[in-house]
Amino acid sequence: MKGIHHVGIAVRDLDEAIATYGKLFGAELEHRDTVSEQGVEAAAVLVGGSRIELLAATGEDTPVGRFLAKRGPGIHHVAYEVDDLDAELAELDAQGVELIDHAPRPGFYGLRVAFVHPDAADGVLAELVSNGS
Amino acid sequence: MKGIHHVGIAVRDLDEAIATYGKLFGAELEHRDTVSEQGVEAAAVLVGGSRIELLAATGEDTPVGRFLAKRGPGIHHVAYEVDDLDAELAELDAQGVELIDHAPRPGFYGLRVAFVHPDAADGVLAELVSNGS
Repeated sequence: MKGIHHVGIAVRDLDEAIATYGKLFGAELEHRDTVSEQGVEAAAVLVGGSRIELLAATGEDTPVGRFLAKRGPGIHHVAYEVDDLDAELAELDAQGVELIDHAPRPGFYGLRVAFVHPDAADGVLAELVSNGS
Repeated sequence: MKGIHHVGIAVRDLDEAIATYGKLFGAELEHRDTVSEQGVEAAAVLVGGSRIELLAATGEDTPVGRFLAKRGPGIHHVAYEVDDLDAELAELDAQGVELIDHAPRPGFYGLRVAFVHPDAADGVLAELVSNGS
């Protein structure tokens, strides 16, 4: 486990959020990408040496759309970078940890990702991330 | 702005949460402290090179106690480390950003901290942190 890869934040307006993070925290845009099949438009911004992923929904009936409807804008997940995502998932699975993804799937920017269920981690949706290869 | 100092997570049982973060993410306990006047018992755990602050309430009528009653356990705030907290606060204040703390106050482990209102930052409670001096 290398540490936090990014913190994911659900926002209503992506352009506004990018501007807000620039104004408040000097954040600079690193990547911006839409993944239609996940219903998300995401912008990775760098705050100093850390990454915040701003997430806007492409529609109401999407994971981020439902999150916004239920809780309003706010912190959506914490992503941790791991060296070997397959090994990490296998280990958590063997421990009986509740996983959303039992195998890695493609994330933004060529990453490989898998989500751990919030019930396993004190109500926090955790994402495990490794660079694609 | 140096980057994320920690992510604060509200939990119901601090010992259980420390154990969970150890099991899932290999987290190691860095500090543990109770600040009675804030109604919080906190444990800083290190996940790789990153810090998670697990926060338990010492009673129901406390900031974390009210958060837990309203939303259940989950991510409570994101803290950013800054070089000069006074200068940062003065700049945000001059920009008209809604602040909870207009001056630094003592945080855990000898830190100086100030909170930015969630209304200023897309629903996210942000904390600014600098080392005490």
